[in-house]
Amino acid sequence: MTVIILRIGHRPQRDARVTTHVGLTARALGADGMLLTGRDKDVKESIEQVTRMWGGRFTIEDGVSLKEAVTRWKQNGGKIVHLTMYGINISDALPEINPNENLMIIVGAEKVPPLIYQLADWNIAIGNQPHSEIAALAIFLDRLNQKKGTDPLTQEYFESKLKLIPQLHGKKVINEEE
Amino acid sequence: MTVIILRIGHRPQRDARVTTHVGLTARALGADGMLLTGRDKDVKESIEQVTRMWGGRFTIEDGVSLKEAVTRWKQNGGKIVHLTMYGINISDALPEINPNENLMIIVGAEKVPPLIYQLADWNIAIGNQPHSEIAALAIFLDRLNQKKGTDPLTQEYFESKLKLIPQLHGKKVINEEE
Repeated sequence: MTVIILRIGHRPQRDARVTTHVGLTARALGADGMLLTGRDKDVKESIEQVTRMWGGRFTIEDGVSLKEAVTRWKQNGGKIVHLTMYGINISDALPEINPNENLMIIVGAEKVPPLIYQLADWNIAIGNQPHSEIAALAIFLDRLNQKKGTDPLTQEYFESKLKLIPQLHGKKVINEEE
Repeated sequence: MTVIILRIGHRPQRDARVTTHVGLTARALGADGMLLTGRDKDVKESIEQVTRMWGGRFTIEDGVSLKEAVTRWKQNGGKIVHLTMYGINISDALPEINPNENLMIIVGAEKVPPLIYQLADWNIAIGNQPHSEIAALAIFLDRLNQKKGTDPLTQEYFESKLKLIPQLHGKKVINEEE
């Protein structure tokens, strides 16, 4: 199963931190990559820098055409989830999702074009209250991983030269290359 | 059980959006309130505005003294969780947490003072990879709710005059006061 995030409506500078959080969250929860409809070299570089330091193979591509990305994904048989507070509750939707299928997860910034609601296989609400696309993505991926029975939140998942030694109190990081 | 977020190191303007997401995520996942060590009228107002519109009783207080808040919490018998990638994995820590105890969850912006690591009852890592304090809080609260057997992501949780009607495709909101 390939899981890819499509971040739409990103505005350079204004959304830089939130989009970076979206990308890092996707990576930490085992997604394979993120596509960005806007262009933002800084966001791209800061996520790539984390991957270089902390391991794994997370790809990020900016300046992507929304229509092309979605059309190609559908032609290849992938399914599309759109995270929105207007959708069907995650508890109702998750049982329908086959964890072996390739999944594109659309995460909007401000306004999302009506087209997206139509072309998504599932419009899924992580609750019907306004909160955060970062939180919504985190909970969706965590629950999807629970369903699949994998846990990228465990350390062994990433092959990293930097290793954290979990501490009751304090910080400990070792660099295995040194 | 009372669950309160203590957001530390907030820098007005620079952190406004991220701190707002932290607060809205806490609220949507059933926490009771957020304390903010810095002052930020805009963040406070935008979260209060959501609560007025969308229901529930989420309190927010800014300009709080870190030491006072923590000392008073401990004196009243509350426990403290600090979310940090350097801590013990959530899967290992969660079984130790009694869901009937009052919980303060500390969420840092950039640098967190070493004191916090010492005074926390649990330093908990939502994975040992760098990602997002918003995502970390979301997953912690979602898993805590799963353990408690409550789900604030269901609509009935909030008593709101605005009601979303979950849709397969599209948006539908009704205002029960009209």
